[in-house]
Amino acid sequence: MDSSNSADSLHSTIDQDVGSFFASAPPLKDNSGLCNLLNQFVERISPLSEFDGAKKVVCVTSGGTTVPLEQRCVRYIDNFSSGFRGAASTEYFLKAGYAVIFLYRRGTCQPYCRSLPDDALLQCLRVNNADIEVTETYADIVKEAIGNHRAAISEGNLLKIPFMTIFEYLQILKMIALAVRPLGRLAMFYLAAAVSDFYVPWESMVEHKIQSGSGPLDMRLAQVPKMLPVLRSEWAPLAFCISFKLETDSKILLDKAVAALNKYKMHAVVANELLSRKEEVIVVRPAGNVIVRRSKVEAGSDVENPLIRLLVEAHNCYIKAP
Amino acid sequence: MDSSNSADSLHSTIDQDVGSFFASAPPLKDNSGLCNLLNQFVERISPLSEFDGAKKVVCVTSGGTTVPLEQRCVRYIDNFSSGFRGAASTEYFLKAGYAVIFLYRRGTCQPYCRSLPDDALLQCLRVNNADIEVTETYADIVKEAIGNHRAAISEGNLLKIPFMTIFEYLQILKMIALAVRPLGRLAMFYLAAAVSDFYVPWESMVEHKIQSGSGPLDMRLAQVPKMLPVLRSEWAPLAFCISFKLETDSKILLDKAVAALNKYKMHAVVANELLSRKEEVIVVRPAGNVIVRRSKVEAGSDVENPLIRLLVEAHNCYIKAP
Repeated sequence: MDSSNSADSLHSTIDQDVGSFFASAPPLKDNSGLCNLLNQFVERISPLSEFDGAKKVVCVTSGGTTVPLEQRCVRYIDNFSSGFRGAASTEYFLKAGYAVIFLYRRGTCQPYCRSLPDDALLQCLRVNNADIEVTETYADIVKEAIGNHRAAISEGNLLKIPFMTIFEYLQILKMIALAVRPLGRLAMFYLAAAVSDFYVPWESMVEHKIQSGSGPLDMRLAQVPKMLPVLRSEWAPLAFCISFKLETDSKILLDKAVAALNKYKMHAVVANELLSRKEEVIVVRPAGNVIVRRSKVEAGSDVENPLIRLLVEAHNCYIKAP
Repeated sequence: MDSSNSADSLHSTIDQDVGSFFASAPPLKDNSGLCNLLNQFVERISPLSEFDGAKKVVCVTSGGTTVPLEQRCVRYIDNFSSGFRGAASTEYFLKAGYAVIFLYRRGTCQPYCRSLPDDALLQCLRVNNADIEVTETYADIVKEAIGNHRAAISEGNLLKIPFMTIFEYLQILKMIALAVRPLGRLAMFYLAAAVSDFYVPWESMVEHKIQSGSGPLDMRLAQVPKMLPVLRSEWAPLAFCISFKLETDSKILLDKAVAALNKYKMHAVVANELLSRKEEVIVVRPAGNVIVRRSKVEAGSDVENPLIRLLVEAHNCYIKAP
């Protein structure tokens, strides 16, 4: 068997896994409504040319996906993710002139809301006689959050789509990829969501709540088929693709990021380690690695600001000089 | 072996499991701060007599507990629960004159906030010139939420304590039980939280993120030791205890609720089925079962209103006629 044959056979295995994942996934609740929403959003952007001045679009994914363990779901496996990185990155992409499709886990951090406390409404507001007012501590933060967020949406630059499960996430991601595909190189995927690696296929899932009779519970989880190769080769082949690699063990992080770059033909992989991820990340690209650090002198600085600056520049190069 | 010996041996097995659970759990971040907070809250209530006019205290638990799968946690198992029932019940307990210790999963529904939309701050407010104002649609809801919530806290009737993991939940529950124990029969536990049945003991948990090499993932989860018998027999033996039983299969629900009532010596078990839980529940008590239904004629009615009325009455009887 020569190498092209073996690549073919790898592709057909991937296709089969991906096909059966989608075939068995519970269908989205409002498939056609969502599809229309996406197409309208992309049409409004409708670039005249791929060069200077044309609007770029980025799909930012954010937060963790859940994996239900029962069809009538009481329990699920979840990935820890506050959605902070996705929300912060969205702000910088908007500032850089992108239209953003923000695919986020329900309940996670929203763009412009990073500095708000938990249960923001209860914490930030008080009743004064018959009026509601913002407490002084939060006045500026709340005004900025509401103002910027509403402006981005009303100007048609921010489309927010929530998900919960791995089934919803991957179906919507595919839908977004097909919608932005006509934009060619102007589209970017910034896949910051913490996507489950393992799941229980819908057809092999028990219907009812697992009983806690006696003794331990043994579970077997299947691997979620890798969608990145399909995104790159079929759904949106010209889009600029950035994926993320999070590890808790710094010793294996870079090797895994480089492997992902090559295997999935990403344009960049952002490598981050759980404990230091708010201080620095390493951008792994075919041309080499760049360490991106949060500024230690600027107040309120974050790692997302320089990271997005670097990626926008790389995307611009990709658009202009294929 | 006679039956008292076998009961003894059952107790010693339970004690051992519970002991090793607490011994191996990662310690709470601010153990002594939390302990002080609880003691102050209970002291402020300081009843002069157990009879008429003395303040009753209920610990309402709400939302699901998480079970980390890795010590440097990226993945965890979660229980689906919005916290709606716990939040609604808290409102009715406050209305009935109780002081409430609200032990809730971070991010779940808060008392008086049931009618607010997701991302309430972003949805309910807008910037008008330099001012922030509540949009008309939400004006009444927001005013009520903020007003009632702030009043309950500032009057010292509501103490809110958040948790995430099963380790935090059970440690804090024990701490609350020991703090309210001096109140004797005036204390109530209303255990509406969705508590994990299975977990990975801390010492047998892998340190780093589980790798998604090749093939499926096999997991073995241990049973979480049952804490209800310990709560009843040791932590707060005189408190009035209500636990919840949620099933998706209505055929086994009642049997399981009755079994829990007898096995754990609860004063009541609230049986609810996943799909109909907002319409009706069955209160299982030693004296017999009562079906509690949401009123279909009152606008905005819920099942928690009649449920709490019934339980408060039962608690009053328990206080007056031991």
